[in-house]
Amino acid sequence: MEGDPTLRLRVFDLNCWAIRYLSKRRQERVQLIGDALRRDGFDLVLLQEVWSERDYSDLKVKLGGCYPFSHYFRSGVIGSGLCVFSRFPILDTLLYQYSLNGYPYMLQHGDWFCGKSVGLLRSRAGGGMGGHGPFALPSCQLHAEYCREKDAYLPHRLVQAWELAQFIRHTSKAADVVLLGGDLNMHPEDVGIRLLRGWTGLRDAFAEATRFEVSGEGVSGVPGYTGRTPTHPGACSQGCEDGCTLVPNNCFTVKSELLPFPLGIRIDYILYKAVSGFTVKCEELKTTTGTAPGMDIPFSDHEAVMATLHIRRQGQAAGDTLATAEPTLADVVTEARTEVGVGLRAAQRQRYSTGRMAVLALLLLLLQAAAALGALAGLAAGQPFPKLSFSLLAFLAIGILLLATGLHLFHTMEVKMLQGTEEQMRMALRALQERP
Amino acid sequence: MEGDPTLRLRVFDLNCWAIRYLSKRRQERVQLIGDALRRDGFDLVLLQEVWSERDYSDLKVKLGGCYPFSHYFRSGVIGSGLCVFSRFPILDTLLYQYSLNGYPYMLQHGDWFCGKSVGLLRSRAGGGMGGHGPFALPSCQLHAEYCREKDAYLPHRLVQAWELAQFIRHTSKAADVVLLGGDLNMHPEDVGIRLLRGWTGLRDAFAEATRFEVSGEGVSGVPGYTGRTPTHPGACSQGCEDGCTLVPNNCFTVKSELLPFPLGIRIDYILYKAVSGFTVKCEELKTTTGTAPGMDIPFSDHEAVMATLHIRRQGQAAGDTLATAEPTLADVVTEARTEVGVGLRAAQRQRYSTGRMAVLALLLLLLQAAAALGALAGLAAGQPFPKLSFSLLAFLAIGILLLATGLHLFHTMEVKMLQGTEEQMRMALRALQERP
Repeated sequence: MEGDPTLRLRVFDLNCWAIRYLSKRRQERVQLIGDALRRDGFDLVLLQEVWSERDYSDLKVKLGGCYPFSHYFRSGVIGSGLCVFSRFPILDTLLYQYSLNGYPYMLQHGDWFCGKSVGLLRSRAGGGMGGHGPFALPSCQLHAEYCREKDAYLPHRLVQAWELAQFIRHTSKAADVVLLGGDLNMHPEDVGIRLLRGWTGLRDAFAEATRFEVSGEGVSGVPGYTGRTPTHPGACSQGCEDGCTLVPNNCFTVKSELLPFPLGIRIDYILYKAVSGFTVKCEELKTTTGTAPGMDIPFSDHEAVMATLHIRRQGQAAGDTLATAEPTLADVVTEARTEVGVGLRAAQRQRYSTGRMAVLALLLLLLQAAAALGALAGLAAGQPFPKLSFSLLAFLAIGILLLATGLHLFHTMEVKMLQGTEEQMRMALRALQERP
Repeated sequence: MEGDPTLRLRVFDLNCWAIRYLSKRRQERVQLIGDALRRDGFDLVLLQEVWSERDYSDLKVKLGGCYPFSHYFRSGVIGSGLCVFSRFPILDTLLYQYSLNGYPYMLQHGDWFCGKSVGLLRSRAGGGMGGHGPFALPSCQLHAEYCREKDAYLPHRLVQAWELAQFIRHTSKAADVVLLGGDLNMHPEDVGIRLLRGWTGLRDAFAEATRFEVSGEGVSGVPGYTGRTPTHPGACSQGCEDGCTLVPNNCFTVKSELLPFPLGIRIDYILYKAVSGFTVKCEELKTTTGTAPGMDIPFSDHEAVMATLHIRRQGQAAGDTLATAEPTLADVVTEARTEVGVGLRAAQRQRYSTGRMAVLALLLLLLQAAAALGALAGLAAGQPFPKLSFSLLAFLAIGILLLATGLHLFHTMEVKMLQGTEEQMRMALRALQERP
């Protein structure tokens, strides 16, 4: 083994909320983020919701000196919004677009247009790791939750969590260390997070951290450090202030959405695992809170998560273990499968009703065509329909036919993907049960 | 090492051309395929274009005895058409849908609706491999080529070939042996095939085979064996009868498309590579030709490819080498990138023209709204427009606006994906050039 077998890795993760024309004071905030990143010199920076390529280019120019390597993942109509800045060379990238991501007609939610994805990036730390230590670095964002009580998108988010877990399982085996950062839009105790963690063996940096800090002024550790010591981060659960990344005292958050959670919620994560011959420990986890240093606004409507990881090479290879005990994992997969089944039945109902609508519109059109032909052939007795209403009706029928057919095709696809996921989960359950 | 360190693996690959309502004598052929597979007992069967899930279920029932493990990959509106039957347990699956796959408005070609994908399957051979030997088994189909002279889909097919190669690179590292089977819709000397082979290190079973046979009557090796010995299969190039999988003497092929290739073309492949500590050799390659045994029809419009691979465990680990010498590989990537660039400029033009069309339709609508408001306010001097033409025009404008907006969004997405691929290829080229 050459060189020092340990590496301290500082990782920064933030949902930047940089939607062109929609996000408040976007350009100002992107500048602030760039300044802070340049000042603080992390090793790896994972950003989400950088929807504008110009914002990425600006950041790239600004950060070129301290983060010579970067990548922007393109997908969907608007983009994936994912980008990565790194001190270490980026060897290779791969983008995986989730097969389900909301509905195109839910324009007010807009998730469908974003092409939400997981971007995988392979990197290799330099001398510190003795030339070894390839990282797999998935960065991702899952479908947003708009209403926790009646969450219509839960099945889609579970399909995404499952696909994300499967993607990590299949691509991470050759890496030494896997690091996942992103806005998962799920609370720590939600079934999707338990599924993702259980099925991949990823550990939650927040729960594992030896030290936890809330950085009072932006990301600069020392000057803004509030010296808050958590009781025991691992024991921290829903509604706990520590580690929350969507907090009521951020001026950009929607206060009404956080009413049931007066201390905020934790939906942004840094997860990690060592695959073989390495150990990873989270030395320290920090989140931002309040405004950026010297400014009246925070970086984003989300708080940033910053982890310091201690990676150490070990003699013996650690097995690729599952994080959760297997009977518990089987329960989690069963729970997720039940929710996917609920979504499947809803999708089947919608497929049926849009199909019926299309057939009705087609019948109406055929009827009209028959009436028009009849009138042309002089068969119609008495006064024919007024031309204007007749053609308006025909256009309406054509419009409904096209719309209903499009929706029918969409829901057919949705049904297929939900069925596929349900079947994969069934296979996984069987495999879990068959293990000695 | 326990058990015999070698394994003889018999692989079957066929594009089944089983499109409901469209493919000729579909059910009869699916039955024939099932009978042949049951009789001949392969180890792994990779099928494409099994678009109907009922066909898959029928095959599953029929083949349950000799192929206890199987998987059907669901995707898109119609499905991916991919399914796998295996003698060995299927451990895990993953589906990757290509980001580009033709155009939704090219209804006569229909590729867009199929959700063409690569399905990855992990399997593990039993005692013969001493309990080791996980396979990665991607099975795939790329966008069809409808006109070789003016191939509008070439950029999309190249994006698919690149994504397929990247997917294999990222997922295969933990496997001992990678086996890719499928209808790649590319001739052996096409840039997409050279890119896929060069970038992944996969070897072409046909070019590597020690023996090559054309099986005269279906898949049964001995009775129908025509005893044809190739001069040297590796030297066989375009238009060579041996190995061709789309041949003029198959009654289902479109003869006019094969006019420039009187002996047929080879577009279905079995590719393989050993990743670590193993060697793979192709002992024998066979293709079907003519009709199925005792019948007046062939199995499909494609010929089946059957390979016998000899897998052997070795002491030392073989490096994950690229198949092509690196300067040559750089040329191939450059060539592919140029073609993707051509596609990108075409997509940008289409994005622009559909955007302009949408703006014009919107202007017309606004003009009409102004005229209608003017008429309502009594400002219009003289005779207003006849109501019927006026509303017909408005409906036409709305229709064009919706259609043009949809197309504009689609081409925006296309541009993003082509740009993303071009950039990835640029990164790959830089990495190739920087290597010592």
